Amino acid sequence: MKVVIIGAGGVASSLAPAVKEAGHEILQIYSHTVSSAKTLADSVGCGSTIDIKELRNDADIYLVSIKDAALAEVGKALTKGRENALWVHTAGSMSMNVFGDVRRGVLYPMQTFSRSKKVCFRAVPCFIEASTESDKEILTNFARSLSDSVTPLDEDARKYLHLAAVFCCNFTNHCCAIAEEILLEKGIPFSVMLPLLDETVAKLHTVPPREAQTGPAVRYDKNVLTRQQTLLEDAMAKDIYRLMSENIHRFSSTDNNNSQS
Amino acid sequence: MKVVIIGAGGVASSLAPAVKEAGHEILQIYSHTVSSAKTLADSVGCGSTIDIKELRNDADIYLVSIKDAALAEVGKALTKGRENALWVHTAGSMSMNVFGDVRRGVLYPMQTFSRSKKVCFRAVPCFIEASTESDKEILTNFARSLSDSVTPLDEDARKYLHLAAVFCCNFTNHCCAIAEEILLEKGIPFSVMLPLLDETVAKLHTVPPREAQTGPAVRYDKNVLTRQQTLLEDAMAKDIYRLMSENIHRFSSTDNNNSQS
Repeated sequence: MKVVIIGAGGVASSLAPAVKEAGHEILQIYSHTVSSAKTLADSVGCGSTIDIKELRNDADIYLVSIKDAALAEVGKALTKGRENALWVHTAGSMSMNVFGDVRRGVLYPMQTFSRSKKVCFRAVPCFIEASTESDKEILTNFARSLSDSVTPLDEDARKYLHLAAVFCCNFTNHCCAIAEEILLEKGIPFSVMLPLLDETVAKLHTVPPREAQTGPAVRYDKNVLTRQQTLLEDAMAKDIYRLMSENIHRFSSTDNNNSQS
Repeated sequence: MKVVIIGAGGVASSLAPAVKEAGHEILQIYSHTVSSAKTLADSVGCGSTIDIKELRNDADIYLVSIKDAALAEVGKALTKGRENALWVHTAGSMSMNVFGDVRRGVLYPMQTFSRSKKVCFRAVPCFIEASTESDKEILTNFARSLSDSVTPLDEDARKYLHLAAVFCCNFTNHCCAIAEEILLEKGIPFSVMLPLLDETVAKLHTVPPREAQTGPAVRYDKNVLTRQQTLLEDAMAKDIYRLMSENIHRFSSTDNNNSQS
């Protein structure tokens, strides 16, 4: 397949090498940032542009990995004069109809992509949708050339999947960022938390999250809950602590058999 | 060392086999629940009791792993007639002075312990404190017989460490529990999240949490943020979503270079 990649952020930067390794031909990287476009294009050996007028019109498939707001804004404009290609975005929460009435689909790679950490795309669960059966088949084959885990999923379910991913990934990471702030105050490096974090996630491979819950909130250890809130000087961190603890307590069943140090 | 373990919850259940494997003699398990006390005692081949009058008084060290509130209540009573032994609790947020004016200390194993998932105690970071230099040495040697990671830490720093652990472990687990609820509604198994969770934590081994942050909140993708809040029917989940997103946005630096699908 001849591919144009639109975007040069975390997702595009992980997608591009996977597309190349799968044997497809990347014609061009398009991004509104010169340096990002050029860096990514150089890494996969193709051309780049920041000018929509120079956007190639001979690709079989256009992969669009840009901010959702930008996608909503430029989705239709991008397809002009390129209506015969298959237009695919990678956004979990966006409809494929953002491209208008063209051949269209979604390839949602459910993973956290940062430029500073390479991800093995073959292990990334990809969820796909397309506007016609024939394009669904084309997109399935394309996705399978990149990843070992390809599942069809409609827009409604994908939205909830993305929402769940935000909780599992973005919010868990933010909990760690708050922990990092707390430790920084005492001169303790964040790395001290890694064995605990590893075990927290390892446990979830065999124990459901509700059952795996430990800590003062699920024990409803009021003394600790009050004292820990007092330690938090930042008002928002305090609110998060209170709200999370209340919700853990609400989730906890009466027959809970866990404890945490 | 001759050891009595007080408590039979998650921490005690991970501690007891580690104590036994290190070659110490466990004299007794004491817990207020008959079945828990007996199950744990049987697993390490010692006696058990639920009656404080039957609590052995010939141990060198008493390891107390009970709820913080219970510890505050019974700490001093437990030591009566056993003042020559070393009294050690495992609670991150409690002072060793909860035992009163006896030989006392803390061995805080910073890990999440559930009865349903065995933990390798040798890999658990343990933070210790004792009331005298000689007991600190005794406790250090004892802790080193159980774990490869033993660090002295005073009460104040330990409190903040425990608070950070609550964010890293208990709150990240709860984020996953909310995700589980969201997926349940759509008939999607939680296991679909495991590659994302694994990568989220793997990334934190090399990238600091703030820098590793991805997702709609750090991109400040208002459309997604609004739509995802609408998907959440539960009021508390909605509040958590809003608060976490606001705080992620607040944490994010202007030179952020991450994105998430």
